Amino acid sequence: MASHKLLVTPPKALLKPLSIPNQLLLGPGPSNLPPRIMAAGGLQMIGSMSKDMYQIMDEIKEGIQYVFQTRNPLTLVISGSGHCALEAALVNVLEPGDSFLVGANGIWGQRAVDIGERIGARVHPMTKDPGGHYTLQEVEEGLAQHKPVLLFLTHGESSTGVLQPLDGFGELCHRYKCLLLVDSVASLGGTPLYMDRQGIDILYSGSQKALNAPPGTSLISFSDKAKKKMYSRKTKPFSFYLDIKWLANFWGCDDQPRMYHHTIPVISLYSLRESLALIAEQGLENSWRQHREAAAYLHGRLQALGLQLFVKDPVLRIGLLGCNATRENVDRVTEALRAALQHCPKKKL
Amino acid sequence: MASHKLLVTPPKALLKPLSIPNQLLLGPGPSNLPPRIMAAGGLQMIGSMSKDMYQIMDEIKEGIQYVFQTRNPLTLVISGSGHCALEAALVNVLEPGDSFLVGANGIWGQRAVDIGERIGARVHPMTKDPGGHYTLQEVEEGLAQHKPVLLFLTHGESSTGVLQPLDGFGELCHRYKCLLLVDSVASLGGTPLYMDRQGIDILYSGSQKALNAPPGTSLISFSDKAKKKMYSRKTKPFSFYLDIKWLANFWGCDDQPRMYHHTIPVISLYSLRESLALIAEQGLENSWRQHREAAAYLHGRLQALGLQLFVKDPVLRIGLLGCNATRENVDRVTEALRAALQHCPKKKL
Ligand SMILES: Cc1ncc(COP(=O)(O)O)c(C=O)c1O
Ligand SMILES: Cc1ncc(COP(=O)(O)O)c(C=O)c1O
Repeated sequence: MASHKLLVTPPKALLKPLSIPNQLLLGPGPSNLPPRIMAAGGLQMIGSMSKDMYQIMDEIKEGIQYVFQTRNPLTLVISGSGHCALEAALVNVLEPGDSFLVGANGIWGQRAVDIGERIGARVHPMTKDPGGHYTLQEVEEGLAQHKPVLLFLTHGESSTGVLQPLDGFGELCHRYKCLLLVDSVASLGGTPLYMDRQGIDILYSGSQKALNAPPGTSLISFSDKAKKKMYSRKTKPFSFYLDIKWLANFWGCDDQPRMYHHTIPVISLYSLRESLALIAEQGLENSWRQHREAAAYLHGRLQALGLQLFVKDPVLRIGLLGCNATRENVDRVTEALRAALQHCPKKKL
Repeated sequence: MASHKLLVTPPKALLKPLSIPNQLLLGPGPSNLPPRIMAAGGLQMIGSMSKDMYQIMDEIKEGIQYVFQTRNPLTLVISGSGHCALEAALVNVLEPGDSFLVGANGIWGQRAVDIGERIGARVHPMTKDPGGHYTLQEVEEGLAQHKPVLLFLTHGESSTGVLQPLDGFGELCHRYKCLLLVDSVASLGGTPLYMDRQGIDILYSGSQKALNAPPGTSLISFSDKAKKKMYSRKTKPFSFYLDIKWLANFWGCDDQPRMYHHTIPVISLYSLRESLALIAEQGLENSWRQHREAAAYLHGRLQALGLQLFVKDPVLRIGLLGCNATRENVDRVTEALRAALQHCPKKKL
C-alpha cells in the first residue's frame, strides 16, 4: 500500500519513562519477587526451540515434580495464568456430556462451574456457604448421585481462607471411577501437598503466589489415569492452544521429536526456573514451615487486636506468600490494622 | 495431612545456577531484546489490580492503537502467545455452524482452519501452494460461494516469506457482510499496515517479533462491527480465559468498574509497554523504513551470492526484526551463508 499520513500519532504517555512504584504485596494476589527472580527477568532472549531452552524446560519439569511431589511424566507449564491451567485441565479431560462434580465453596469452584458449562459438561456444583470445606462423606454422596468423571476441589480457597483437607479424596474418587482435579494456586509451597500419595489426578498451580515468580505461567501435572482419559477422547478439545497432546510433545513428555506448537514465554520461564530453584534450595518442608510459622504469628497478633478469624480453624494465611512470609511483614500489617481499627466506631469486636 | 518423608527430592539440575548463552536470533521466531526492554523485565512486581497497573495498561492500549493505526476502543492485550490471540479472535467471533473462509497458504492459515474446526465452524480453506498470496478476485469468489461471516488472512506469512497485500480486502468483505481478520504477528512494525483505513475488523500481533519484547503476550483490536457480532452471539464462547466481555471489562474498554478476571502477566506487560514506547519514539514510519532497507540490503547480498529468492517478489524478510534489522546482521548472515555454500556440491545456483 502506498505510504499514508498516520491517522494515529504516537501517544504522549508512552513518551514518558516507565516508573514502577515500590509496593509491598500482602494481598491474595501476586507477591513480591526476590532479587534472584528479578535478575532472571532481565536476561536476554534465547531461541524458543534451542537446545538451551529445552534444557531449562526439562529443569522446570523436574522442579514441578518436586513441588507437586509427583513422578508423573506428563508434567509441564501452561503459557497462561492459573485460570488458563484450570481451562487446560477441563478442556482436555471433559468431553461434552461428561458429568462433572464441583466443590463450589468460593470463587474458584464457581469458575470451574462456568468453564465446565461452556464446554458442554453436565456440571453438578456442590454448593456450600463460603468458609467451609468438604468432608469425605459429602463428596461420596455427590459421587454416588452424579457418577462424575471428574471432581474439582480447591486446596487453598484464597477468597475465603479455607484449607481443604485432601487425604482420602483421591482413593474415594477412584473407587467411583472419577478423576480428582485440585487447584493449588494459593497453597502450593505454603502447606503440605503430596500429589502421588494423595491420589490427585490433575494438579495445577500458579507462578505468582508462594513461588514468588511473576504471574503469567502455571504449572500442571496429570496422572496416568488422567492421561488415559484425555488420550482416548472421541472429540478434539475446543482449544488448540491448550491441546494436551501438542503441549506434551513440545514439553518433551512423549518420545516424539518436539514440534513447534506456539512460542513459549522464554523470559517468564527463566523466572519460573529460578523460583523452583529457590524452593529446591530451601527445601519444600522448610517452605511449609516458614508459612506455618508466619501464619501462626499473624493469628496471634490478630487475636491480640481482638479480631475473630472468619473461618473456624486457623488456616494458612494466603496473603503471606513465599519471600513475603516473614514476621516483619506480619508486624507491618497488624500495625496498620490496629491503627485503622482505632478509627472505626466501637463495635463488639 | 501428617508430615511425610518426601517421595521426590530436590532435582540436582536446579541446584546449579541458571546460565543463558549469547544467541543472535535471526530466525522467524522471537528476536533479541534491546537493553531498555531487558531492564523492564528485571523490575519489581506491583499489584495486578493497582492504579499504577491500570495506568500502564492504558498506555499499552494507546500504543497498540498507534502501531495498528486504529481508533478502536476495543483494543487490548491477550495473556498468551500469537496463537492464543488467534484463538481469542475465533472463539469470540465464531459460533458453531458459522461459515469461515480461510486463506490457507501456509502454516498460519492451517492453524486457523484447525481452531475453526474445533469450535464447530463450517471452515472453507482456500488452499494455495506456499509462496503465493490471494488476489481480490480469488477472495471474492470465496465470499460469493461460501457466504462466510469471517475471512482470515495472514499479512506476513513467516513460513514462506509472502506479504499479503491488504488494500481493498476490507471493503470487499464488508460488501459481502463478512468480517476481515488479519494475522500481523510477523509483519507489524516491519511494513505499512493501517487497520482502520484498510477496513480490518480484527487484527492481532505478537510481542516477540518486530516489537522486540519477550514472547508470551499478544496484541488485539476489534472494530465496532466485530464487537457487534461478538456481543450479540447466542452462545457463550467455549473459553472463559479468552471471553472478550470479561477481557474488555478488565482492560477498561467498557464503562463498568474493572472486575477481577485473571491475573495479568505484570512483568511481561512492563516489557510490552517499553517495546511500544520505543516504537513510538522511533516513529512507525521510521521502523517500516528500517526494515525495508535491511530487507533490500539482504536481498542484494543474497543475489550477489547467486541465490534465488523463494518467492516471486522481494518481500519483507521476517528474520530481521526490530533491533535486529541492521546491515551488520545482514553481513553476518550472508557471510555465514557464503561459507556454508562453499561446502555444497556445485549445483546450478
Ligand atoms: C486458589 C486460586 N485459584 C485460581 C486462581 C486464578 O489464578 P490466575 O489469577 O493466575 O488466573 C487464584 C488467583 O488468585 C487462586 O488464588
Ligand atoms: C505470522 C505468524 N502468525 C502467528 C504466529 C504464532 O505466534 P506464537 O508462536 O506466538 O503463538 C507466528 C509465530 O511465529 C507468526 O509468524
